[in-house]
Amino acid sequence: MSAGLRERTRRFIRDVVLPAEPAPGDALDDTLLGVLRDAAREAGLFAPHAPVAHGGLGLPLDEWSGVFQEAGYSPIGPAVLNIMAPDEGNMRLLEVVGTPGQHERYLAPLVRGDVRSSFAMTEPHPGAGSDPRALSTAAERVDGGWLLTGRKRFISGANGAAFAIVMARTPAVEGWAEGATMLLLPLDAPGVTIGPDVHTIEGAIAGGHPYVRFEDCFVPDEDVLGEPGQGFRYAQVRLGPARLTHCMRWLGLARRAHDTALDRANARELFGSKLRDLGVAQALLADSVIDLETSDAIIDKTARVLVADPRAGEALSSVAKVHCSEAVFRVIDRSVQLCGGDGVTDALPLLQYLNEVRPFRIYDGSSETHRWAIARRAASARSREVEAGARRLDEVTP
Amino acid sequence: MSAGLRERTRRFIRDVVLPAEPAPGDALDDTLLGVLRDAAREAGLFAPHAPVAHGGLGLPLDEWSGVFQEAGYSPIGPAVLNIMAPDEGNMRLLEVVGTPGQHERYLAPLVRGDVRSSFAMTEPHPGAGSDPRALSTAAERVDGGWLLTGRKRFISGANGAAFAIVMARTPAVEGWAEGATMLLLPLDAPGVTIGPDVHTIEGAIAGGHPYVRFEDCFVPDEDVLGEPGQGFRYAQVRLGPARLTHCMRWLGLARRAHDTALDRANARELFGSKLRDLGVAQALLADSVIDLETSDAIIDKTARVLVADPRAGEALSSVAKVHCSEAVFRVIDRSVQLCGGDGVTDALPLLQYLNEVRPFRIYDGSSETHRWAIARRAASARSREVEAGARRLDEVTP
Amino acid sequence: MSAGLRERTRRFIRDVVLPAEPAPGDALDDTLLGVLRDAAREAGLFAPHAPVAHGGLGLPLDEWSGVFQEAGYSPIGPAVLNIMAPDEGNMRLLEVVGTPGQHERYLAPLVRGDVRSSFAMTEPHPGAGSDPRALSTAAERVDGGWLLTGRKRFISGANGAAFAIVMARTPAVEGWAEGATMLLLPLDAPGVTIGPDVHTIEGAIAGGHPYVRFEDCFVPDEDVLGEPGQGFRYAQVRLGPARLTHCMRWLGLARRAHDTALDRANARELFGSKLRDLGVAQALLADSVIDLETSDAIIDKTARVLVADPRAGEALSSVAKVHCSEAVFRVIDRSVQLCGGDGVTDALPLLQYLNEVRPFRIYDGSSETHRWAIARRAASARSREVEAGARRLDEVTP
Amino acid sequence: MSAGLRERTRRFIRDVVLPAEPAPGDALDDTLLGVLRDAAREAGLFAPHAPVAHGGLGLPLDEWSGVFQEAGYSPIGPAVLNIMAPDEGNMRLLEVVGTPGQHERYLAPLVRGDVRSSFAMTEPHPGAGSDPRALSTAAERVDGGWLLTGRKRFISGANGAAFAIVMARTPAVEGWAEGATMLLLPLDAPGVTIGPDVHTIEGAIAGGHPYVRFEDCFVPDEDVLGEPGQGFRYAQVRLGPARLTHCMRWLGLARRAHDTALDRANARELFGSKLRDLGVAQALLADSVIDLETSDAIIDKTARVLVADPRAGEALSSVAKVHCSEAVFRVIDRSVQLCGGDGVTDALPLLQYLNEVRPFRIYDGSSETHRWAIARRAASARSREVEAGARRLDEVTP
Repeated sequence: MSAGLRERTRRFIRDVVLPAEPAPGDALDDTLLGVLRDAAREAGLFAPHAPVAHGGLGLPLDEWSGVFQEAGYSPIGPAVLNIMAPDEGNMRLLEVVGTPGQHERYLAPLVRGDVRSSFAMTEPHPGAGSDPRALSTAAERVDGGWLLTGRKRFISGANGAAFAIVMARTPAVEGWAEGATMLLLPLDAPGVTIGPDVHTIEGAIAGGHPYVRFEDCFVPDEDVLGEPGQGFRYAQVRLGPARLTHCMRWLGLARRAHDTALDRANARELFGSKLRDLGVAQALLADSVIDLETSDAIIDKTARVLVADPRAGEALSSVAKVHCSEAVFRVIDRSVQLCGGDGVTDALPLLQYLNEVRPFRIYDGSSETHRWAIARRAASARSREVEAGARRLDEVTP
Repeated sequence: MSAGLRERTRRFIRDVVLPAEPAPGDALDDTLLGVLRDAAREAGLFAPHAPVAHGGLGLPLDEWSGVFQEAGYSPIGPAVLNIMAPDEGNMRLLEVVGTPGQHERYLAPLVRGDVRSSFAMTEPHPGAGSDPRALSTAAERVDGGWLLTGRKRFISGANGAAFAIVMARTPAVEGWAEGATMLLLPLDAPGVTIGPDVHTIEGAIAGGHPYVRFEDCFVPDEDVLGEPGQGFRYAQVRLGPARLTHCMRWLGLARRAHDTALDRANARELFGSKLRDLGVAQALLADSVIDLETSDAIIDKTARVLVADPRAGEALSSVAKVHCSEAVFRVIDRSVQLCGGDGVTDALPLLQYLNEVRPFRIYDGSSETHRWAIARRAASARSREVEAGARRLDEVTP
Repeated sequence: MSAGLRERTRRFIRDVVLPAEPAPGDALDDTLLGVLRDAAREAGLFAPHAPVAHGGLGLPLDEWSGVFQEAGYSPIGPAVLNIMAPDEGNMRLLEVVGTPGQHERYLAPLVRGDVRSSFAMTEPHPGAGSDPRALSTAAERVDGGWLLTGRKRFISGANGAAFAIVMARTPAVEGWAEGATMLLLPLDAPGVTIGPDVHTIEGAIAGGHPYVRFEDCFVPDEDVLGEPGQGFRYAQVRLGPARLTHCMRWLGLARRAHDTALDRANARELFGSKLRDLGVAQALLADSVIDLETSDAIIDKTARVLVADPRAGEALSSVAKVHCSEAVFRVIDRSVQLCGGDGVTDALPLLQYLNEVRPFRIYDGSSETHRWAIARRAASARSREVEAGARRLDEVTP
Repeated sequence: MSAGLRERTRRFIRDVVLPAEPAPGDALDDTLLGVLRDAAREAGLFAPHAPVAHGGLGLPLDEWSGVFQEAGYSPIGPAVLNIMAPDEGNMRLLEVVGTPGQHERYLAPLVRGDVRSSFAMTEPHPGAGSDPRALSTAAERVDGGWLLTGRKRFISGANGAAFAIVMARTPAVEGWAEGATMLLLPLDAPGVTIGPDVHTIEGAIAGGHPYVRFEDCFVPDEDVLGEPGQGFRYAQVRLGPARLTHCMRWLGLARRAHDTALDRANARELFGSKLRDLGVAQALLADSVIDLETSDAIIDKTARVLVADPRAGEALSSVAKVHCSEAVFRVIDRSVQLCGGDGVTDALPLLQYLNEVRPFRIYDGSSETHRWAIARRAASARSREVEAGARRLDEVTP
């Protein structure tokens, strides 16, 4: 199924969406977004990743990559197809963990594109940031539900979102373990304050990245997502795929930048040669192809592992995230370079793209945090192998 | 099938082959090789890639990677399993292009491990080197066959090989196109001189890399491999998979080096901490994991494409080859670094490994030649897209 | 002299200029600039590089680096000290090539900071861009001067500048060689049109980077800078030092970003450790120190060579420019990374800095153009050595 | 003085030493070394760095670089000029710390080239390795001297050396602090056992890198180098310059490899062009020039700082060591790549060079250990600045 869908998405993005893109620096007009979404619905391309029962196309996770890359070829493509963060990750989380009632109330309107949503985990320092376990937002047990209080930051999409999935620390009560709990909360609920905004360099996510404050917000039991105390476990359910879909979308944008550079290399003459025939340019182009292809390959591999073994997939998603976030940055950076002076003006959107992807090396765990986790996991896995009898390889006669 | 075979190969290599490895710098004794091969045959692991009809296990190309990586974990593993270059590539070429008679005479003993073989394409400058089209060895048409004359260099495995597949320039005669022709030639044929040897840094390939000279060697028609004049086309048949199996084997060796580094990191204390807990070491380890995983992923992707679309697969094999050859070098180099002083002595085999893989960035097309080809292919492909109507992306108002 | 001046500049920038910096994204108010410049004059720090005769401090070129780096520690520091591009390079060019009359009319007010200036060489494609020899703006000989016509682009600082130094192609007349000629032209002269602006990512240079059009602008002989036809030679006089002062200023900004990252590393706790004690962070910090120190060293060396042998210095300035432009980008990029989420918001100015320095890898010759020139020069120099009798080192027995 | 000496050294190395080099893999014959040293003495080029009083040329430290680089252009050049490690570093240490009697007995014959020496600090794990403070060799106070016992490893040059400078832990006795002490010990003294050898990849240092064992070796007071307990302080005196002279010599070898690559690029045709005109090759060549020039510049800067402020110079020597050791490896690695198949055979000495310099990234403190130290120093220095009143730059409104 996915090859045909990929090709149709490709045509739709290039024929319909590209001509409608706003100029570099401008935001997409909501009315135009509505028109484009209608066109996507009509073309049978809307919400490809979401369950069929709720209006999506039901594409399995290990077939998302091609479609998401095609969508990402336009900075507005993911929003048009309703596969943008954070909604896309929230849809998956709700699908996997939510109750039928939650599906009806929260998931269905999200899949239809009627509302937007947020995922409220990150907090101002010294709360949950690089280290999610430092969570300081808390909910206390009250009759029939929970009373939520705390302060979040970098809550992508919160402005204008209908609801948020909020991570809060909860105590050991009524047989539930102490831990983190995920709470579904309409953002117009009493006690919610949104703002001030955090001004980031990128602009792809509608709704900004504001602070959100919760003061004694009541969350009834039916709006607890999954079981109390299991929030970190569910966060992993969301995190692995969410990291990977970022990789897919940005890889699409990197392809766009690379095509821009190829067009320039094919057209521009310099020192009496086509730029495409000048070797220093060829070296840049080749390195970009290598980055694109290895990113595509590690995304595919990770998606397959995520389906077969979510825990192993989540570990591998760290590797994919570091590689892809750095590779797409390099590809766009090289494309800027190949377009020379035009690359650093707004005559081309390349520097906008570069700034769009720059935070991806920090969001969802910085490259450094992931490297740290990757190294520790590798050392521990090898340690277990040796304990299980594998021959130690580093020993030398002293 | 391949997951079980991989696991059994893994066990065999670690339990049987590792303890039998020669010390760094020493060559594997032929008798011991024979013993190990018998053990591999008995374990049902010998010649996994070769056709069942001729004694192999018939594993399809897109399932080789795991098994070849496990074999490559030991520098002698591929020879033990009879999947070493150049024999392995020659088997595939013979399988795809050869006649039943050639299968009987040349392929079958190769698969059984009774003989070794060579692939004689490269020539001393200014003949066929980085640019295979500069081929100067030639064969002239004579009654019932061809008379071969020329000089080859870097003919891996020629010392002691039973036969070679020789690339020679042939004229347009009897309806065949002018071009290159592949000739099967026993190396004890009259007119063949082997030597002098070319001393390279690595030592994994039995039979060295000598010069080979052909003087009026007669090759009967039945020993022409495929159709006269089509040699370059067949070379592509061999080249894509052969490049990729190099990647697989060396990736296995890189995993060995990485495990060595992990063992050291888990065991060694420095400045009061385990080396595994020192962040500068963690950064090296994480980068190696990323190199290993992306190499594995691009090999898998390329193998699948090679099966589905050999021409596209051959192009992608350039990307895989550049990435993997550079990645495995980096992984081993980092492992040397992590083992400190021991890494540069023969107390550990790491520097031997580094020297073994160094030529891989040059053999089968240097990284630079491949980058040049990758860039040109990318520019041409995009050029065709634009000609077919894709919107040019680089245009600015002058 | 320069050590004391450097220290006094350092104090002035940190104590007086830093507190006056505009918020990220905002421009420096002209009135405030005036106040800061007065303070700099009073502190004896204004125009340190300019000739004493015209109001500067007369610092020799090989002692500029420390002072310029201190100034560059603030994005507005160079403007405050009147050592910003393009004025600074124009001052040097006027000093070396100009007549006493030109010194009086053009150089003196520039040194005093009364006016700004432009250097009008770059043209829209296919004119003078990466390849200056493609110059298409031309001046024809008329009675008592030249009539200038053409179109320029990326003319930094042109909005509001009092005059420009314009490169124009001139024919062989009156004994002058055909070639390029530098013409001094007040920008309020008849026939000059400034605009439209070219919107670039950075904002450090007052006056933007607009297009400038010249239509039959008359330039009297007394406003020819140097001899007609020698413009490319003079461009080299300007180019070597101008490239290097860019390196100096941006290196200062990179130190600022690095100090920001160090402050964060010293203050922030993560996973129970100070960030400064986490090794993956240490690796980034160390790499930045190496980038900063090698940049400082190559700038110093190049400055000394420029003084002793301008032609050799100009060649070495290519090396310095590539290294420093890439190194300062890396340092700021690492600093963004070390500041995590804050690094990509406007809570810190780091991403602004990153965008300020990004074009430096393209302006004044892109890294790729310079690499091409560096390689060609190296190959030619070695070729001459071999011709002069040096033993060839690459020969092998065929 | 140094420019002329550099030029004369250059001529001597290229005209006299190059033609006498042994084939790759072979060691220099002692008789030939004697002849070459006599020629160097006659040419007034011998021991340029050593004090005039003892037969050297008395070149100041900040003028060594050019001469050492010229010597290093040949792998045997430093031995011919008597500026090879570890003798060169020992000469400096003896000059600075030694008594007149020690100068007479130990320094003078070393400068004359009559004997070789060793520096015995490194120990088998868990003794003094990456962390010198883990020193386990000890000396106890006895009448009129010290009784030395312990085991050393990687003692470069020990086979055949006349004496060693041995680092040993000493207790607080007779008013001396507890700490490390440097002891001068003839290697034919009772209780000294040399061996077994440690087989390393490089071969430039005569005398190998054996284990050395001391059992109750008596060292009289007159053979204590400097004051007891101050050994680590003296080690720093030796270490900074010794690291830097390694950089100088290996930089010379990198220039040799680069010249080899340039010769190949100038001579070889490929795909119808000179290799020097193929851009992917140009990119490699340019990167090597950048590595060579920045290495040269940071060496010069460090040497000047070492003379002006030894403590600051020692810190900067970490930066120089990491940069140069990695840069020379890259330069030689690129040269291998540019020479293609010949680069990995012994037809050219490039892979030998690569193996010669590989350990330099580990010896004298690995790149990782230095990076760790560099980061810590940078963080501490900035911390002191902030404590002294510098404005913190990373603060954001929470």
